[in-house]
Amino acid sequence: MITVNQAISIIKSSLVQIKTEYINVENAISRILADNVKAKIDSPPFNMSAMDGYAIKIGKKLNQTKFKVIHEVFAGDGKSLKITSNQAIRVFTGSRVPLGTNRIVMQENCKVINNNEIVASINKNDELFIRKKAQDFKKGSIILQKKHQVTARDIGLLITSGVKKILVYKKPNIAVIATGNELINIDKKINKGQIYASSLYMLKELINCFDANCNKLLIIKDSELSIKKSIANLKNIDLIITTGGVSVGKKDLVKKCLEDLGMKTKFWKVRVKPGKPILFGLLNNIPIFGLPGNPVSSYVCFIIFITEAIKKLLPSDISYIKKSKAYSLRKFVNNSQRETYYRGKFYKKKNSKYVDIFDNQDSSLMKNLSLANCLIKIPAKKTYYKSDSLEILELKNCI
Amino acid sequence: MITVNQAISIIKSSLVQIKTEYINVENAISRILADNVKAKIDSPPFNMSAMDGYAIKIGKKLNQTKFKVIHEVFAGDGKSLKITSNQAIRVFTGSRVPLGTNRIVMQENCKVINNNEIVASINKNDELFIRKKAQDFKKGSIILQKKHQVTARDIGLLITSGVKKILVYKKPNIAVIATGNELINIDKKINKGQIYASSLYMLKELINCFDANCNKLLIIKDSELSIKKSIANLKNIDLIITTGGVSVGKKDLVKKCLEDLGMKTKFWKVRVKPGKPILFGLLNNIPIFGLPGNPVSSYVCFIIFITEAIKKLLPSDISYIKKSKAYSLRKFVNNSQRETYYRGKFYKKKNSKYVDIFDNQDSSLMKNLSLANCLIKIPAKKTYYKSDSLEILELKNCI
Repeated sequence: MITVNQAISIIKSSLVQIKTEYINVENAISRILADNVKAKIDSPPFNMSAMDGYAIKIGKKLNQTKFKVIHEVFAGDGKSLKITSNQAIRVFTGSRVPLGTNRIVMQENCKVINNNEIVASINKNDELFIRKKAQDFKKGSIILQKKHQVTARDIGLLITSGVKKILVYKKPNIAVIATGNELINIDKKINKGQIYASSLYMLKELINCFDANCNKLLIIKDSELSIKKSIANLKNIDLIITTGGVSVGKKDLVKKCLEDLGMKTKFWKVRVKPGKPILFGLLNNIPIFGLPGNPVSSYVCFIIFITEAIKKLLPSDISYIKKSKAYSLRKFVNNSQRETYYRGKFYKKKNSKYVDIFDNQDSSLMKNLSLANCLIKIPAKKTYYKSDSLEILELKNCI
Repeated sequence: MITVNQAISIIKSSLVQIKTEYINVENAISRILADNVKAKIDSPPFNMSAMDGYAIKIGKKLNQTKFKVIHEVFAGDGKSLKITSNQAIRVFTGSRVPLGTNRIVMQENCKVINNNEIVASINKNDELFIRKKAQDFKKGSIILQKKHQVTARDIGLLITSGVKKILVYKKPNIAVIATGNELINIDKKINKGQIYASSLYMLKELINCFDANCNKLLIIKDSELSIKKSIANLKNIDLIITTGGVSVGKKDLVKKCLEDLGMKTKFWKVRVKPGKPILFGLLNNIPIFGLPGNPVSSYVCFIIFITEAIKKLLPSDISYIKKSKAYSLRKFVNNSQRETYYRGKFYKKKNSKYVDIFDNQDSSLMKNLSLANCLIKIPAKKTYYKSDSLEILELKNCI
């Protein structure tokens, strides 16, 4: 059986980056840039007033106070105006600054003596209140870098810069297929021996949290026909996840079915707990993960393995899962031959993190998974003592 | 002029919690629970096999090895089966455990000697591999607490528990209205004196990042008629944001228009930089924020003030904006009489954070806002020296 790290290496080397597409900037939130973005216009696009006040032209000594007001220009006005010495033009925040202006005096510092004359009080240290054309950025300059994930602020920047379309990596389309005769959909009434297919919508939302699309959700029976048919019918899918049917039971048909369809198995079974029977392969170059049916196991496998696949498909510098160190609040023995991911809770006190491992680690316990805020990684056959430093995977936001 | 803290107090005391609604659990991601959630069924709903193997009934001494296989039961089978001593039933992961079973032996430890007989090797320390009915949670027990924000894992838990609808706080519906003759939409070609309305889509995405809905976006002219009409036409809105037109210029009509419509002004102007002219009031009990037109100012005002309003409308324990301390990398003087929020970048080294304030803090610089990963709060008239500890507001994820 291979180790977790070996499995991750195989996943990474089996996948290639996803294709790119152009999208409108107003839809760009959280998308990953596939190229540097260059501004289409200068910003500001013209010398712009930063205040409500008067544009004036004044000599270096600043010893002049009276100005003749010859015009006014509102924000949005296209007029090309000009002033000479002794003249002023009424301007507002956002107005184009008239040609010849070397300073704007805020209206609070101007006294109107008659309709077209003001007295301005000017101090050497006053701001000029002129936002110079292109002082934010120049047309053609790079405003955002390749592989950056677009924030709300970036959308403001992109719109300011006149960019309308940007090149981004496509969102991977992912299908989730839950196999198991015992599984029923949430809209059904439960009968003896049945359970609700809880992994399905959990995995769908995990996929969304990791900036991919889940555009196919299926529950199917443990039969070769339905497994093969559901896989063969998938279209426009970049990654397939199945749950259940990958172990050694009589009804564990997923591996056989996929191989019959032509899947090249890259690995089956990893020295990990929970999640040992995980299967990974390529079917017509589309990656397929066969996860265990147990919801906790499928969750842990998603966090450890599938996130690595998504990061390879959709390259970015984002670390969705923060790995950090925390001091153990108890002694802990991992008797397993497998690297184990325990559910637990960490907290921060001053500048240190402390973590407690939940008592019951049975991989059927969804409530404990919900209560956890981290997974704690313990190597095989390892004992940790109280206050030892453990590696944790922080589960944040919607994850 | 009031302080930032005074303004926040006024906002909080002016708002009431938003109404609640029932939604389907499969749509519950990131929603805030308005009540404790109780399980509708036991989980597991029956004693369930944790392995592929054989259910047996064996005496305490475990000195028996041969068992007669009388049946097999697959996951999903509703059959009620029973075994007595010396008997075994073939089971699989997820199968109902037959009555009388006190242990399941994994198939790897069983040797089939003929079609209906096995020899099982059993060790005192072996797991029983029986998931007891309700060992995860009991029907009627609380599985999620009020005010909790639903994660992907919680959706798995909710579905497992048979819950189909949950009571959540409604998502606040927010309208954004940008005022200014100089503003044009992104689909238009820019003319002299015009700029793109970049705040609009930036605020929309910020609203989404904070778990609210932005369901109205408008650009309108600086005219009393259009301002009043656009506000009066709003329907099903829980909070209104305007940008521009709140200062002292000739075209700053927003405050007058809102008051004409009946808005009770709660405050106008705050000792904050950027964002001084911010306006807040209630119109028919709907909160309205008048933000400055400048995109950087409107962003900062959103982070400082509107997030507080959303948190009051939509009660939760989430801190969207993490406040922390970082050591300054330079001397910094705030000459302003106003509490100032500078754009800058912090990084973490070992267990400490360090922050650098950008050189140019002009509030028209969108590129600097995009490059920042924090806002640095500096009190009025305060000087900080290198290595002094500063308060930062971390800007993460889509924010």
